[in-house]
Amino acid sequence: MADFPKPPLLPLISLFLVAFFHPVLSSRFIRSPGGAASRFLGKFAAGGGSGATPYSYETRYFEQNLDHFGFSELPSFRQRYLINTEHWAGPEQLGPIFFYCGNEGDIEWFASNTGFLWEIAPRFRAMVVFPEHRYYGESMPYGSKEVAYKNVTTLAHLTAEQALADFAVLITDLKRNLSAQACPVVLFGGSYGGMLAAWMRLKYPHIAIGALASSAPVLQFEDVVPPETFYDIVSNGFRRESVSCFNSIKESWDAIETEAHKSNGLSYLTKAFGFCRKLKSVDDLYDWLESAYSYLAMANYPYPSDFLMPLPGNPIKEVCRKIDDFPNGTDVLKRIFAGVSVYYNYTGRVDCFDVDDDPHGMSGWNWQACTEMVMPMSSSRNGSMFPTYDYNYSSMVEWCFKSYHVKPRPNWITTEFGGHGFKKVLGNFGSNIIFSNGLLDPWSGGSVLESVSETIVALVTEKGAHHLDLRPATAEDPDWLLEQRAVEVKLIRGWLDEYFEKTTKKKKIIRVFDM
Amino acid sequence: MADFPKPPLLPLISLFLVAFFHPVLSSRFIRSPGGAASRFLGKFAAGGGSGATPYSYETRYFEQNLDHFGFSELPSFRQRYLINTEHWAGPEQLGPIFFYCGNEGDIEWFASNTGFLWEIAPRFRAMVVFPEHRYYGESMPYGSKEVAYKNVTTLAHLTAEQALADFAVLITDLKRNLSAQACPVVLFGGSYGGMLAAWMRLKYPHIAIGALASSAPVLQFEDVVPPETFYDIVSNGFRRESVSCFNSIKESWDAIETEAHKSNGLSYLTKAFGFCRKLKSVDDLYDWLESAYSYLAMANYPYPSDFLMPLPGNPIKEVCRKIDDFPNGTDVLKRIFAGVSVYYNYTGRVDCFDVDDDPHGMSGWNWQACTEMVMPMSSSRNGSMFPTYDYNYSSMVEWCFKSYHVKPRPNWITTEFGGHGFKKVLGNFGSNIIFSNGLLDPWSGGSVLESVSETIVALVTEKGAHHLDLRPATAEDPDWLLEQRAVEVKLIRGWLDEYFEKTTKKKKIIRVFDM
Repeated sequence: MADFPKPPLLPLISLFLVAFFHPVLSSRFIRSPGGAASRFLGKFAAGGGSGATPYSYETRYFEQNLDHFGFSELPSFRQRYLINTEHWAGPEQLGPIFFYCGNEGDIEWFASNTGFLWEIAPRFRAMVVFPEHRYYGESMPYGSKEVAYKNVTTLAHLTAEQALADFAVLITDLKRNLSAQACPVVLFGGSYGGMLAAWMRLKYPHIAIGALASSAPVLQFEDVVPPETFYDIVSNGFRRESVSCFNSIKESWDAIETEAHKSNGLSYLTKAFGFCRKLKSVDDLYDWLESAYSYLAMANYPYPSDFLMPLPGNPIKEVCRKIDDFPNGTDVLKRIFAGVSVYYNYTGRVDCFDVDDDPHGMSGWNWQACTEMVMPMSSSRNGSMFPTYDYNYSSMVEWCFKSYHVKPRPNWITTEFGGHGFKKVLGNFGSNIIFSNGLLDPWSGGSVLESVSETIVALVTEKGAHHLDLRPATAEDPDWLLEQRAVEVKLIRGWLDEYFEKTTKKKKIIRVFDM
Repeated sequence: MADFPKPPLLPLISLFLVAFFHPVLSSRFIRSPGGAASRFLGKFAAGGGSGATPYSYETRYFEQNLDHFGFSELPSFRQRYLINTEHWAGPEQLGPIFFYCGNEGDIEWFASNTGFLWEIAPRFRAMVVFPEHRYYGESMPYGSKEVAYKNVTTLAHLTAEQALADFAVLITDLKRNLSAQACPVVLFGGSYGGMLAAWMRLKYPHIAIGALASSAPVLQFEDVVPPETFYDIVSNGFRRESVSCFNSIKESWDAIETEAHKSNGLSYLTKAFGFCRKLKSVDDLYDWLESAYSYLAMANYPYPSDFLMPLPGNPIKEVCRKIDDFPNGTDVLKRIFAGVSVYYNYTGRVDCFDVDDDPHGMSGWNWQACTEMVMPMSSSRNGSMFPTYDYNYSSMVEWCFKSYHVKPRPNWITTEFGGHGFKKVLGNFGSNIIFSNGLLDPWSGGSVLESVSETIVALVTEKGAHHLDLRPATAEDPDWLLEQRAVEVKLIRGWLDEYFEKTTKKKKIIRVFDM
């Protein structure tokens, strides 16, 4: 067995960046290949905030097999799930089951941020279920995160296929216990959860009648889409607002590099960017900035939000306003610091910033990125405002082996779920999937942006960001968002109608919803 | 870890009953619940004969991950596959790949007995690939059958999902190496291999464009079909030929039981049935007879064959002729011995019979039946000529735990692959599967006998037996069999045509086959 060190606890909760996953990675690998990409990824997969949710549910636990596809004598584990049956029409009336495919974080956090599902469920008289993804939140094999994340053997079963099987087993058992075998299940998911929802509909059509896969980059593997897509879209988000803003950010990397090479350069940079503790490496600053820009692009919502961080509406516009709002000749570091402060300190209440310096911040997504979720990412010379970076697979392999004693399987996801020729394959196969994407979202480039068939459809909004459609309704929702959600509701209703029609043909059952 | 005893080698090769799997079980469980069901199952999963095949191929080996769905540090293993590219049109012309989903035995044996695939491949200018199923034949993890079959930990990864993933990975790699990514794959399989073919098309539509699933009892799980189906069909096969034959067999069990309870009863029975060694238990005789009747039903082909055993055409007719061909009042044991001798000694060259007396004959299918492939089987009071038996799940659980330290997952296959509402689910999902069945085959009751959609079709022949359509053509093939195969060829051709049309729309590629 690998003699992997016991990981320290992740001191990242304060960043509250749970729901997203992110490329492996630009500057860290350029500057210290195989070194410490973990910090950057780590925070996105860390156990999330358990902040109060506006929705009511019961928390339950379900005993799962750790390995659905093998029969070694492994301990089972308790999967947490949230459930609300308040509005459910019940089994006789074929009340639907709305099932969110939990992704890489605490399920309560996803439940809080997936208002759309909660809001439409009563109109469908649907039960609501939010199962947690194994190895996240409270759903820890081996009783604790410490043990579950200990080494390659304990982490071995943290895979997407096992998570999908968990969902399938849970749904089947839940329905059996409620005599609800005939009740239709509709899947929902955002980001990695959206990938799970789409894959689940494809792999388990007997379990769920359809899936809304929001911002699901199911094609961000191998060479199915160009590796520059992600950073190009982030960069375009800034250039669209202001070319000078884009240029300031693009120039800033060299300026940082220059400073870093001076004596006392790190001290200077620490002070210039207001960190609480002295930077150990300039790479930490790179990552800190890159994170901010990337997340700003994902959370570039049209109204103020508090999803990742408290942010104004159209936050990139605000960042660029700050960056551009200096007299000519102002130091570029000063400019971009003002910009990223919109992200890290919009409330103005932060005195100084923390950079995570956990060199082996083991987190679930790190593991997933080192095993199955191998998503090639580059930063292009011209299209990107980030430092130029060509995807370096062997650096990643090296880092993953050093960190986890594990070898990535870069071709596995496309072998298991497809990727190349996605549209052609599913043109006469499968049905009832919505791929919804907002073009401001950097992940949209790895998703499905054209309808595949009459029933596997793409919904694209020009001004949407990362799974905006799944967020709770607000008074400021623009018309195009209301329209997008209305189309989604209509499509889901169509799936259910078709299902009810087929089912009630044989049995005399009254259709349950009326909208 | 379980302290499971090292299994003895199976002395069953002489029976040559490889390709089939069989219910858990009738009389053994009635008479000695939890006792020794293994002998009966054992022989169907044993490594098969490596008899000379009339087809030419190259034997190759491919390094596979033992666990595709997890990342424990396990050794990889070498999967054997047979390949013939002699008639292949090549990648430029999108030459098809005909891929047989290897089932529970030596792949050379399946290759020899799947003449249909070899015979049609040249007409399609197709490559032929016969991959072996993991844990069978030469495709042994841990280097040898002794180690692979040692205990629950080494056997853990003998599952259908892992086998399907092996196929997916192998095809993907094979195509990449030949620059044949765009070449369409068509799956073939019979019996358990047919189940794998159908499931593979459903789970991996991006890997294969269609599947011919011959005699694939994908619905023989839980309560999807009545548990009496198998033995009722076997019994009907005999009743159809002769009611008195059916009655003789039905009466024989009591006669055997009565003899067995006499002093020297086992000696008498040993002599009466011509066993080489004295019967240790009357259960062995029950199994020996049940096997014969069941296999006669499966191999009830319209012409002489040498698949399981050398047999005349319509062997059940011949068995019943023998059984009925005695003066009134002849001892029933004498009658049925004459009958089963058609099965066990058609050549007349066998001096005495062997009963396998390996009490823990570990075999791959035993393991599969004790883990995933939980197929409930009963023997009905009236419809069946076998001793009445109600399926007893807990006996099986007990036996499996005693034998393998493993707990069956009786609901897993339907959760993973579906079962209930099969037709409804796939009515608007999936395409390009042929379920072919002959109604004489006792496994037909657990298969798909009605078309699901325009492209998921059932081909049913009244007089066909177990995957007769896949067997090599013979001069005696009846018209209905020629017609069935012609329809299969036409459907496969249709899948390929559609694929070529879609593909060549973009690229200018000439269609490769002309029939």
